[in-house]
Amino acid sequence: MTYPPSQTAARQTVAPKILAFDVFGTVVDWHSGIAREVRALQPGVDGDAFALAWRAGYQPAMRRVRSGELGWTLIDDLHRLILDDILDQFGLSHLSDAQKQHLNKAWHRLDPWPDVVAGLTRLKQKHTICTLSNGNIGLLTNMAKHGGLPWDCILSAEVFRAYKPAPATYLGVAKVFDVAPEQVMLVAAHQDDLVAASACGLQTAYIERPFEFGQAKPKDVSPDPANTFHAQDMLALADQLGC
Amino acid sequence: MTYPPSQTAARQTVAPKILAFDVFGTVVDWHSGIAREVRALQPGVDGDAFALAWRAGYQPAMRRVRSGELGWTLIDDLHRLILDDILDQFGLSHLSDAQKQHLNKAWHRLDPWPDVVAGLTRLKQKHTICTLSNGNIGLLTNMAKHGGLPWDCILSAEVFRAYKPAPATYLGVAKVFDVAPEQVMLVAAHQDDLVAASACGLQTAYIERPFEFGQAKPKDVSPDPANTFHAQDMLALADQLGC
Repeated sequence: MTYPPSQTAARQTVAPKILAFDVFGTVVDWHSGIAREVRALQPGVDGDAFALAWRAGYQPAMRRVRSGELGWTLIDDLHRLILDDILDQFGLSHLSDAQKQHLNKAWHRLDPWPDVVAGLTRLKQKHTICTLSNGNIGLLTNMAKHGGLPWDCILSAEVFRAYKPAPATYLGVAKVFDVAPEQVMLVAAHQDDLVAASACGLQTAYIERPFEFGQAKPKDVSPDPANTFHAQDMLALADQLGC
Repeated sequence: MTYPPSQTAARQTVAPKILAFDVFGTVVDWHSGIAREVRALQPGVDGDAFALAWRAGYQPAMRRVRSGELGWTLIDDLHRLILDDILDQFGLSHLSDAQKQHLNKAWHRLDPWPDVVAGLTRLKQKHTICTLSNGNIGLLTNMAKHGGLPWDCILSAEVFRAYKPAPATYLGVAKVFDVAPEQVMLVAAHQDDLVAASACGLQTAYIERPFEFGQAKPKDVSPDPANTFHAQDMLALADQLGC
């Protein structure tokens, strides 16, 4: 088990009991999944650009809830609002409502990255593994059945009625399991999520997902010494945690 | 698949998508588990009477929350309030706080009835299986890891901030999975729970647990024609549902 030298002694001695996983991008490949599903509905559409446009609406939509412009809204409903906004731009306005509903639930059918099922299965032997996603519980449950994700528990913004990066979500995990924040580790492919978790006292593990935004847009996955762990994938994290 | 003749035609044609399970008594044997753990702490104590007394405090404690006398309280904390009330009566006041905390978490370590793991594994193939318990999420997750319960999702009073039999809990399951109430079936060994679920439009399955209150106090498990299904155990329910 290796910790970067920047970590404090206190952090180095506490083994995490609970591993809480970000989901979109960290566990599942949303870019390929969304691109594939829209191409299946409408051959010839630019699936890559469509996936990026849909995902790009995600943070602004959550901001509308945080600001109070929208009341508390599940991600399924936010996805639909964004979808309705971009259909015209991609020549998809003619889709029937049933087709739009089906497409909106493509987020429930995203495939895990290839290392995930084997990695989670190993990590689960010594830890409690749960989701901590802004996705709603039904979406995350359907996705787990689709991809065979062996979660011990599905936690979501829906449980805490707050989206990440609100402290109520990270601290909520510790409260649910009646443990100190440093006994929880957030596992994510997004540094902003990890920074917010760390500010709440959680341990952090960065997972490299260089092609989260597609093969054409590789992202910087270089290690940040602020994280407790940095791993290429879930199998490497299991190695580092001795699982 | 057999339905009692009392069911309406509409109910007979809808297959349940979501099976929501009551837990204490239906899935796990709280009486034996609590009796065994208290006897291990204090040989010679009447484990049977202790288990019954602790459980008997459960409904009155929830009533204190419903009435507003107590604010929203997790079952772990209600269990501790009841425990502190009965320790003296069983000659257990001398226990250290660490021992009391350990005993309070005996509810996290209850064993499933012998048919449960195999039954749930079969039922899970064709349905989404979740808990719907007044137990808190952490308790239910620890119990699932202890007993190997293969839940797709852990739902709890804690998610809905209401205890069963509040309609918000039964209807909350349908809402989480974006299905009609009749596509959800509550599976329970308690007729009052099933009656409340049915009043919300859910299907119901009664599971026989004649020794829920111990071998000395067998309970009446005769079929009530109001239920959609009546099964001796989870394996028999899987048979009836064609799983």
